[in-house]
Amino acid sequence: MSITAPTGEVHDQVPHHETKRTEYNLVQVKGTWTRKNRKTLRKNENERVSSAKIHECSEGRGTTWTVVSPIVFTYQVIQTQNLLDPSNDALLTGHIRDPQQLELLRGSHKPLKRFVVMDETVFKLYGCQVTDYFESRDVLYRILPLPTTEEKKSMEMVMMMLNEVHKFGIDRRTEPIIAIGGGVCLDIVGLAASLYRRRTPYIRVPTSLLSYIDASVGAKNGVNFANCKNKLGSYIPPAAALLDRSFIQTLPRRHISNGMAEMLKMALMKHKGLFELLEEQGRFLLDSRFQSNNVDLTSAAAVTTRVAIETMLEELAPNLWEDDLDRLVDFGHLISPALEMEVLPALLHGEAVNIDMAFMVYVAHERGLVTEDEKLRIVDCMLGLELPVWHRGFTLALVQRALRERLRHSGGLVRMPLPTGLGCAEIFNDTDDETLCHAYERWCDELGPGLSS
Amino acid sequence: MSITAPTGEVHDQVPHHETKRTEYNLVQVKGTWTRKNRKTLRKNENERVSSAKIHECSEGRGTTWTVVSPIVFTYQVIQTQNLLDPSNDALLTGHIRDPQQLELLRGSHKPLKRFVVMDETVFKLYGCQVTDYFESRDVLYRILPLPTTEEKKSMEMVMMMLNEVHKFGIDRRTEPIIAIGGGVCLDIVGLAASLYRRRTPYIRVPTSLLSYIDASVGAKNGVNFANCKNKLGSYIPPAAALLDRSFIQTLPRRHISNGMAEMLKMALMKHKGLFELLEEQGRFLLDSRFQSNNVDLTSAAAVTTRVAIETMLEELAPNLWEDDLDRLVDFGHLISPALEMEVLPALLHGEAVNIDMAFMVYVAHERGLVTEDEKLRIVDCMLGLELPVWHRGFTLALVQRALRERLRHSGGLVRMPLPTGLGCAEIFNDTDDETLCHAYERWCDELGPGLSS
Ligand SMILES: NC(=O)c1ccc[n+]([C@@H]2O[C@H](COP(=O)([O-])OP(=O)(O)OC[C@H]3O[C@@H](n4cnc5c(N)ncnc54)[C@H](O)[C@@H]3O)[C@@H](O)[C@H]2O)c1
Ligand SMILES: NC(=O)c1ccc[n+]([C@@H]2O[C@H](COP(=O)([O-])OP(=O)(O)OC[C@H]3O[C@@H](n4cnc5c(N)ncnc54)[C@H](O)[C@@H]3O)[C@@H](O)[C@H]2O)c1
Ligand SMILES: [Zn+2]
Ligand SMILES: [Zn+2]
Repeated sequence: MSITAPTGEVHDQVPHHETKRTEYNLVQVKGTWTRKNRKTLRKNENERVSSAKIHECSEGRGTTWTVVSPIVFTYQVIQTQNLLDPSNDALLTGHIRDPQQLELLRGSHKPLKRFVVMDETVFKLYGCQVTDYFESRDVLYRILPLPTTEEKKSMEMVMMMLNEVHKFGIDRRTEPIIAIGGGVCLDIVGLAASLYRRRTPYIRVPTSLLSYIDASVGAKNGVNFANCKNKLGSYIPPAAALLDRSFIQTLPRRHISNGMAEMLKMALMKHKGLFELLEEQGRFLLDSRFQSNNVDLTSAAAVTTRVAIETMLEELAPNLWEDDLDRLVDFGHLISPALEMEVLPALLHGEAVNIDMAFMVYVAHERGLVTEDEKLRIVDCMLGLELPVWHRGFTLALVQRALRERLRHSGGLVRMPLPTGLGCAEIFNDTDDETLCHAYERWCDELGPGLSS
Repeated sequence: MSITAPTGEVHDQVPHHETKRTEYNLVQVKGTWTRKNRKTLRKNENERVSSAKIHECSEGRGTTWTVVSPIVFTYQVIQTQNLLDPSNDALLTGHIRDPQQLELLRGSHKPLKRFVVMDETVFKLYGCQVTDYFESRDVLYRILPLPTTEEKKSMEMVMMMLNEVHKFGIDRRTEPIIAIGGGVCLDIVGLAASLYRRRTPYIRVPTSLLSYIDASVGAKNGVNFANCKNKLGSYIPPAAALLDRSFIQTLPRRHISNGMAEMLKMALMKHKGLFELLEEQGRFLLDSRFQSNNVDLTSAAAVTTRVAIETMLEELAPNLWEDDLDRLVDFGHLISPALEMEVLPALLHGEAVNIDMAFMVYVAHERGLVTEDEKLRIVDCMLGLELPVWHRGFTLALVQRALRERLRHSGGLVRMPLPTGLGCAEIFNDTDDETLCHAYERWCDELGPGLSS
């Protein structure tokens, strides 16, 4: 017996000892997709050919189909000024890339609808402005202030938020959820939006320095679970991240330092110029809270944030789903997650990262990758940024446990990014235990609290 | 002032009135990614060029970066026999495509580790066989039987499962979670795995006919939320779906009919041969529970399941993330989700789908797309498969509400797949209310319960 397969080809029984392999393209005619043998495919005007492929392999036990389907993620990172000024369209339409769609929207009389989640503290500071913005733009909106703290960064918070989203009702395709707050808020909302109807667009408005240069730029989101940092999450980028530096005005000084730790990370890994700027202007940036004449694109605030984002994008864009395990952006993130969760809420994310980086600089020095002078310059820069460079919770046992864990989860290699000078780095898999111990001792001797340790 | 950007180019201040656009490729040298102007890109042996791109556009308000990053999803749908026979490797290594990795694994002395979730009913029937399989293969395993019913298909079940996964401990990359059960079990486990560490590989072993031909083949997973079907979920395909028809032996007859509804859907939309087989052999397939001599690839059971999967793959592979809203596979799924949730647990998924399809056939007939004879043949085939063709909960009000909802969520078009004959179909956006009403009346007259309606 034979039956006409969807391709119109006739399939005959495959003898048991034979293996038959066919590669199919997928072609759409009048709304119906059909497989076409790759070899016999000819381009036809009325056909749409998919970038997906199906490989079929028939053997004794049956058929195996291998589906290869590329999904293209596109998102925007948009610097803007006066985001909450009603004359600025960015918050409502900044994410729309298609000029035609934008035109249509502008012509439409249907009011826009937006669900907005705000960090509670940020709501106290900017809630009125956000309300005014939506009121004056005639938007149907609901603002949900949430206590988005690291301790409450959980699936429960995601579900609570989704209940409100569901009650409010939004169009899955055209009414993005807006998150305004620090990294915790952006991560929670990002995860909730990714789950809702299997993917609802969302917009990130970072209000802390850390989320401005880091959480905004990539695709990651997540919540803590079982006392582990960001153990549950996904890799769905926002439709857009809208960056307005003026929010940093109200950010506590400690949190500015916190954000500068991730900046310093990018500087140490790949940009000497950024390192030198942080070295020279770090104190000034802290004092001026990254504010500068907006028109001046050459101010330290403008340049450091831009370079931080550009270097971050360079590393994240080619590895959006973290398939490549060798990642320079992991610098400072090998031991710190364990430390952070252990001492919560004593240390902020960037502080934990900085402690980890400080230790790793000692490892790099021990391995002869950075000179004594470079090491001192880095540590001085950290101190200038008012970041902690040592912590009693960062024990040698914690280091070893965290690296063992990493080994298990990184395909058997530790993949340790280490600076190899100022503004350049490589990934190493051969740091032995002795080196770690020596570096650790040196680190404690030089940066630890001396007698009290 | 100017600063050397990560590219090594010198950026000068962009005058306010000018717009500067640059397209960047991303190139990796010695572990560090850098942007390279697309125009000046030359291929170098030692460089790795990413398929991701960054478009930069600098204007008065600041810079906008557009990230375009393709992620390639690859997964396998594998027909096999005697899956639970210890001599069959599929359950442990079937998902591994790289021969080198397979070789490495076979040479390794480290025991494999697997977390397995099973539908409770399936566990009662096959739990011993699964246990024997893992015991005789020296696997470190944990089997978690769960009451995976439609009513319990929720995020709570996902979290409960993840607690157990976390306690057991698995390697994120190399120890896939295995789901063995019907569509509910596969959907819950799929979502849980997608979330855990932002993506843990998982394997689907469908044991119901419906999940064999449908839930296994695509990328979707999900749970119910706020009384809505699959309102939360994601599009992460399994590493592999392992298909063994012998599970269907123990499946209740009603559930076999249930699965055949989704088969019939594919037949009506795009495969006349499949329709004819279901018409002629439907009863036999029900009686024989899709069992046949495994070697016989031409049996009705072998052919109908294979064609159902092939046609399904054709439609799903080019549209894995459902970006294209025009989907033939949505046939029978426009009104049925609302019906299904409303009358839960009275109707099974495929039953609700079939009722929806029966009504839509009347709509197609009313529109002159199918003849009276074709309509009758389709309805007869449905009855032969022992599927319901009408339901009192399927009111005209429900139809109108569901289509209104769909309009809202499908970019303003209703996108209604309708048969245009036997085994062919198109998507229509212009079915008017009068047509719907007439079709509805006709449908009730001919298939409803008469006086009692
Ligand atoms: N998704 C990612 O790629 C990514 C990257 C880096 C960090 N993160 C996550 O981000 C979190 C850390 O981000 P964070 O440091 O922004 O933490 P956060 O969200 O807790 O914000 C820090 C504090 O600053 C307050 N705040 C925020 N903006 C303010 C403003 N404009 N004025 C006054 N106060 C303000 C907040 O209320 C909070 O108390 C961590 O959970 C981390 O895992 C995610
Ligand atoms: N992800 C997808 O693409 C997709 C596609 C279609 C359906 N679904 C989902 O799948 C679900 C329906 O699937 P289903 O019909 O398999 O439901 P189900 O998982 O509830 O299984 C049906 C019943 O059959 C029992 N069962 C399963 N295998 C058995 C066997 N071998 N022997 C005896 N009993 C067995 C189960 O215990 C259950 O009672 C719905 O929730 C639907 O949303 C998902
Ligand atoms: Zn970080
Ligand atoms: Zn279905």
